[in-house]
Amino acid sequence: MKHFEIHVTGKEGIHDPAGENSLHALANLGYTGVTGVRIGKFIQLTAEDSVTGEQVEEMCQRLLANPVIEDFAVTVHED
Amino acid sequence: MKHFEIHVTGKEGIHDPAGENSLHALANLGYTGVTGVRIGKFIQLTAEDSVTGEQVEEMCQRLLANPVIEDFAVTVHED
Repeated sequence: MKHFEIHVTGKEGIHDPAGENSLHALANLGYTGVTGVRIGKFIQLTAEDSVTGEQVEEMCQRLLANPVIEDFAVTVHED
Repeated sequence: MKHFEIHVTGKEGIHDPAGENSLHALANLGYTGVTGVRIGKFIQLTAEDSVTGEQVEEMCQRLLANPVIEDFAVTVHED
């Protein structure tokens, strides 16, 4: 079994309304030292050993991320 | 400046419809070797040096995660 971890993050310059809302909400709660919040996705994917990192990158390109506005990074752990 | 990275993941046993939809969509695309998909959040938070990891954990408890159904993990990088 392989365990892939995928981080999907908004590209620089892409508006992140959820992150901005969280930043304002944190300030309202008194956490004024926070200067920025960006919210992306953390995807945990389990697969048979035959599945390769290249295939998972392809899955990100085709489905799991939106390559026009998002970057992604794939790491793998085998057990 | 401090950079915090927060991973928010659904607790075990908690239903993850987005992950299940992705799993089915991957199977439809021919990626039948994938056995599970869980989708969580990856939050990148920048803050002044005075902000502590304990405070960021408190932010997770109060706002950034839902501790009833989600776990979270905080890591910090200074520069």
